[in-house]
Amino acid sequence: MRAVVVEADSDERRPRLVEKPKPTPDDGEVLLRILRVGIDGTDHEVIAGGHGGFPADDDHLVLGHEAVGVVEASGEADLEVGDVVVPTVRRPPPDEGTNEYFERGEADMAPEGAYVERGIVGAHGFMAEYVTTPAEFLVPVPKSFAEYGFLIEPLSNAEKAFELAEASRSTFHWDPESAFVLGNGPLGLLSLAALAEDDRFDRLYGLGRRDRPDPTIDVIEDLEATYVDSRETPVPEFAAVHEPVDLIVEATGYAPHAFECIHALAPNGVAALLGIPGDSRIEIDGGAIHRECVLHNKAVVGSVNSNRRHFEAAKETLSAIPEWVIADLLSAVYPPEEVEQAFDADETAIKTAIEFDS
Amino acid sequence: MRAVVVEADSDERRPRLVEKPKPTPDDGEVLLRILRVGIDGTDHEVIAGGHGGFPADDDHLVLGHEAVGVVEASGEADLEVGDVVVPTVRRPPPDEGTNEYFERGEADMAPEGAYVERGIVGAHGFMAEYVTTPAEFLVPVPKSFAEYGFLIEPLSNAEKAFELAEASRSTFHWDPESAFVLGNGPLGLLSLAALAEDDRFDRLYGLGRRDRPDPTIDVIEDLEATYVDSRETPVPEFAAVHEPVDLIVEATGYAPHAFECIHALAPNGVAALLGIPGDSRIEIDGGAIHRECVLHNKAVVGSVNSNRRHFEAAKETLSAIPEWVIADLLSAVYPPEEVEQAFDADETAIKTAIEFDS
Repeated sequence: MRAVVVEADSDERRPRLVEKPKPTPDDGEVLLRILRVGIDGTDHEVIAGGHGGFPADDDHLVLGHEAVGVVEASGEADLEVGDVVVPTVRRPPPDEGTNEYFERGEADMAPEGAYVERGIVGAHGFMAEYVTTPAEFLVPVPKSFAEYGFLIEPLSNAEKAFELAEASRSTFHWDPESAFVLGNGPLGLLSLAALAEDDRFDRLYGLGRRDRPDPTIDVIEDLEATYVDSRETPVPEFAAVHEPVDLIVEATGYAPHAFECIHALAPNGVAALLGIPGDSRIEIDGGAIHRECVLHNKAVVGSVNSNRRHFEAAKETLSAIPEWVIADLLSAVYPPEEVEQAFDADETAIKTAIEFDS
Repeated sequence: MRAVVVEADSDERRPRLVEKPKPTPDDGEVLLRILRVGIDGTDHEVIAGGHGGFPADDDHLVLGHEAVGVVEASGEADLEVGDVVVPTVRRPPPDEGTNEYFERGEADMAPEGAYVERGIVGAHGFMAEYVTTPAEFLVPVPKSFAEYGFLIEPLSNAEKAFELAEASRSTFHWDPESAFVLGNGPLGLLSLAALAEDDRFDRLYGLGRRDRPDPTIDVIEDLEATYVDSRETPVPEFAAVHEPVDLIVEATGYAPHAFECIHALAPNGVAALLGIPGDSRIEIDGGAIHRECVLHNKAVVGSVNSNRRHFEAAKETLSAIPEWVIADLLSAVYPPEEVEQAFDADETAIKTAIEFDS
């Protein structure tokens, strides 16, 4: 079968289409025929070697962690051949079988070493014609999700961040009306689309640094959010130009934003951080940020990965998001043979995916 | 009656004992005879003019926000003459009567402008022989609290921080075992004493920067916590020397701690910030801190003030803390005539209070 991999000992680290044996499911496993696999920033980091790692004793990694597929063979009562499913990403370390985090259904809270991530670190991903996985890691979705279901994984990361943010405000009456999403990549735009479906939010803002015409600005404005160009309105000035907001979702991986955004929060507001920056020394007015957090009861929650509950929430949200938003987000779908184009998409593309089957 | 005030137009801003008319309670108000009033860092900031402010149209501010008193006259069914009570600190702005935050019992979440704070900003405090206040702002305590009940207010601030921290971790199974309190002032030591009463915490650490012999180090060690000298073990190195901890309580007001402490947290840990620093430009590895927050689901919650629920929690905690801890914390009690000594206590003092009556 065909699979897209990155090779450990290649001079040039780039995604390549290779032939691999079709996997055979073990007892309790399901064989999936993959339909589509989305590409995101994490894939690029894995390819560049800045994040993730190869499976033990393997010289390559099958890429891909945002997938939708069809059950091809199942020994499980709950899943039938032909069911459309979305796989979760984390698995127990191969030598462990399971651990307390997986037993609780909270693999997303497992520390490093207590998990592998398919397509990212220590386990092959989903960018192949066929994959196998234990049934417990599959989330059934409606058949109508066959095309866009791979968006459930990135959206589930936003759902987890929303959940953590909300919980951090649960000791008092919190009635958010405004939100500011930092970042116009796929995760930022999906977060904005999800917030647009939440009736509580009357006013939404989306941060980018692009000139018009630009497809991400179009999506932001079509969602009736206000586009904020960080070159004109840096994050520390946002509140004065627009308004202090109740919720911030950081999806840029640009470190200064994680700190400056405190000044863009309203009293009792919360910032959810989703971006993963590299090391970066910065100078900040730490006193003002620290003081703001305290005097106005502000909170910051970091969030990574997601569990089945967040996949279920993402399924609901994706059902609610208008189809035109999803169509706008998905710039292009490529066959596996065009893997290089799929990964090298330029700024006119928002989200690309590889289609193995339809 | 005697009252301790700071005067607006004095050349030298320092607490002074003055004579003021004994207040007369309005309808619905209670007349309190004050027993003791604690002194804390906020009082010093108010005196220095760096925080707080005078009541409108007044040239002085009665100090004091940590009080315990006795009901001297009450028109309220729930409070009888002789009851020992602790007053909360925030009141609605004088021209407002009330607002949504006070109606919900969440004055601690009110933004600036939606409250005054007795003894701090916009309203006279409790450092006087008699004060009046609406009955709704009084928390009855056992008569045995007549001596130490003024510690309920600072402890209630820690209780609120614990509550916010806990809520931020409520979406998953969080089983904290270790905590690190930054700061050996009264708030830090009270926080440590409260955590020592929480059976979940097996291992406690307290940060200071003092040489032995020192009374705060004695309290830390008597609580069976490990004293961490920040000159030997800076906060960023804490985890390597000791262990990453589940909970951090920052009670220093030293801005770098609010950021560096992320590296001292275990995965899924939370830091509660209570200190109030001035502006302070600092250089940090913002990328590493941001990344740590995200990849390990870490959270930071700022917390200020407290509401009746937290006073009630503090009452329970104070009942549980061994009396010797409280006796060790309270270095000296002064009569109002010795107000200067009470405020000028040196490093050998942990917590001082002024006693108007006993």
